[in-house]
Amino acid sequence: MRDVAVIGAGMTNFGKFLDRSMKDIAGEAITGALDSAGVDKSKLEAAVVGNATAGLITGQEMIRGQVVLRELGIGGIPVINTENACASSSTAFHVAWMYVASGMYDMALAVGMEKLYHEDKTRSFKAIGAAVDVEWVQQMAAAAKAAKENGDRDNPAPEEGAGEKRSMFMDFYAAFARQHMQRYGTTKEQFARVAVKNHYHGSLNPHAQYREVYSLEDVLTSPMVAEPLTRLMCSPIGDGAAAVVLCAADKAKQFTSKPVFVRASVLASGDDRQPGQPGITERAAQKAYEMAGVGPEDINVAEVHDASAPAELVIYEELGFCKPGEGGQLIDSKATYVDGPIPVNPSGGLISKGHPIGATGVAQIYEIFSQLRGEAGDRQVRNPKVGMTENGGGMVKGEAAALAVHILSV
Amino acid sequence: MRDVAVIGAGMTNFGKFLDRSMKDIAGEAITGALDSAGVDKSKLEAAVVGNATAGLITGQEMIRGQVVLRELGIGGIPVINTENACASSSTAFHVAWMYVASGMYDMALAVGMEKLYHEDKTRSFKAIGAAVDVEWVQQMAAAAKAAKENGDRDNPAPEEGAGEKRSMFMDFYAAFARQHMQRYGTTKEQFARVAVKNHYHGSLNPHAQYREVYSLEDVLTSPMVAEPLTRLMCSPIGDGAAAVVLCAADKAKQFTSKPVFVRASVLASGDDRQPGQPGITERAAQKAYEMAGVGPEDINVAEVHDASAPAELVIYEELGFCKPGEGGQLIDSKATYVDGPIPVNPSGGLISKGHPIGATGVAQIYEIFSQLRGEAGDRQVRNPKVGMTENGGGMVKGEAAALAVHILSV
Repeated sequence: MRDVAVIGAGMTNFGKFLDRSMKDIAGEAITGALDSAGVDKSKLEAAVVGNATAGLITGQEMIRGQVVLRELGIGGIPVINTENACASSSTAFHVAWMYVASGMYDMALAVGMEKLYHEDKTRSFKAIGAAVDVEWVQQMAAAAKAAKENGDRDNPAPEEGAGEKRSMFMDFYAAFARQHMQRYGTTKEQFARVAVKNHYHGSLNPHAQYREVYSLEDVLTSPMVAEPLTRLMCSPIGDGAAAVVLCAADKAKQFTSKPVFVRASVLASGDDRQPGQPGITERAAQKAYEMAGVGPEDINVAEVHDASAPAELVIYEELGFCKPGEGGQLIDSKATYVDGPIPVNPSGGLISKGHPIGATGVAQIYEIFSQLRGEAGDRQVRNPKVGMTENGGGMVKGEAAALAVHILSV
Repeated sequence: MRDVAVIGAGMTNFGKFLDRSMKDIAGEAITGALDSAGVDKSKLEAAVVGNATAGLITGQEMIRGQVVLRELGIGGIPVINTENACASSSTAFHVAWMYVASGMYDMALAVGMEKLYHEDKTRSFKAIGAAVDVEWVQQMAAAAKAAKENGDRDNPAPEEGAGEKRSMFMDFYAAFARQHMQRYGTTKEQFARVAVKNHYHGSLNPHAQYREVYSLEDVLTSPMVAEPLTRLMCSPIGDGAAAVVLCAADKAKQFTSKPVFVRASVLASGDDRQPGQPGITERAAQKAYEMAGVGPEDINVAEVHDASAPAELVIYEELGFCKPGEGGQLIDSKATYVDGPIPVNPSGGLISKGHPIGATGVAQIYEIFSQLRGEAGDRQVRNPKVGMTENGGGMVKGEAAALAVHILSV
């Protein structure tokens, strides 16, 4: 397989855009990516478009990519629509990368887009609920009811109707957080520090949905979602889009003096496993490190799937940024701040930049692309050479349904 | 890119299965494909799953593939969910082919699955309506209303509410059929002969949803859907699944003495074009012929997208099986019957085998695989060496949103 470069990236601000259509927001991101690459749309040879909830929110299924691309006058080329819940567009990036890496095409577009806001917010939460095995959730809800009657608060299943008031994923995250606290002595304050950091980073990012700076006390005293998760530790509902242009590495110099190379593109799915065996994130990261020929010590900047603050802390451990159980100490040391030795989520991450779920994967690539080119403005990490993204999606039988890890470098 | 072989294929019968779950029908097809290949599920390195309507029919979005695969104990590997309306699973096949052709993996699974039947049939038709640009349809419905007031019956847009009583695509097909009649003198009887042929073929196929043989008169006098389309000229709503195992060609002999090689895999999307310029099918077929190094005269058997009988007749011309305007003469000559010189849709096609839309693409591959291996039973074409599939999906601005052409050979 041949080397592939990202030569341009665009994204919208993330936020609440009830009055903007999918065509409108995706168009802004795609046009931004083409402008950034200095490439005319006629040069595109393939497009892969990730989206998660348009079917349930807007009624547009099946050909979501073509609908937005034709609006921009982009047609004729192969268009693939990918879904993988919150990892829908890192999956799109993975397929676009494969189009170029395989030698089939020289230039491909990867797009992530989402309009998750709906006037009726319960519809947004219900849509997110389609990211799990619907049958399984019904069984688990019954189990949770039984466990509650027996006084067991640690059962990770959502309570009945929980998915209509908030994302049911927050119940899972809360349970995992409690397990981490019990096993390693991690504290609620340590989780809160992840949120403090990401909100600080988001305050530096003009694309971020929430740009307020919060203190530790602000985070701890914000409304409780599910013990120990407070609202400021959770990623919000949001709308947005991101797009990147991929190009055969040996042709990239024709378009830019600053190509960013894709060193690893790994997609994995959940599996049955025994306690103690590596989880999906550890397995995918290990594969990506092997593919790129680097280790965690070589990563200068990472964007990871902090759908909730505890998730980021666990991901530190899974990606090898610290040893198992030491995620709490890592955030205490401020090592993952934008000016620390291993900056994580300089964009503000899902918590502060926002999480329009189908857009998140390519938006992470956008951030690493910007960072590696030194174009990240106030949130610029100092002189990074190697960057990483980690993006999870959905859940089946207690493990992520999809997980994508990418490693990029200058 | 390296050569790829199909080494196993499985499919369910197509039909109305209100009491079977997606896990159940997809499981049958996947197990059938693994058994056919003589490969244990643990050998699979990647899976790509195409589906079109589960989100709107069953509520399961985003991770449809993982949900059915984990049920079978298949996990850990990359899983990509693809959508492209009626071409969702030929798109899945295309991506699975790319996984192997690129050298990334040696063995991949491609799955197509659909449960289109719903107790409330208007919900099935509404789901199919998500295969077009929803905004555009609203505009066209307004235009059709105006055209009707002006006495113009040839406007191809659906009337208001048409999509709730039947697939709105039949209105498009009817308009295209009328245009062909006007331009080339094609007759309603010629369209009907396509349906007679495909129902006859379907009668020979144990997987077919409809296995009755019909006379020309039966077809012409069956209830009118949209002039000149009668019900027996239209593909039905249906449920079903199909799966195939793809393998690096140089390793295929380890598993089977009868591999079927993928000679071309081409995906295209619709485009703006001037009258007289080649359409999406002609362009995709041309690319596929070039990729495979063959021409239409080399094709011994083809499965094509006869969502309606006139479509098949036009596809004869677009694939080069006859000259433009001569599709009517080709069906009159019986050349496309299973024992003719260029057999088309020996499976019964979408009209008779059925059209569970997300399953159709891989089911076409299943048929060509069976034919090329001489395993097609009563509908076996005599000694075919090269087979072809053509599968269209969705519509944007009057042209197919997606179109996949594959060429396979022994």
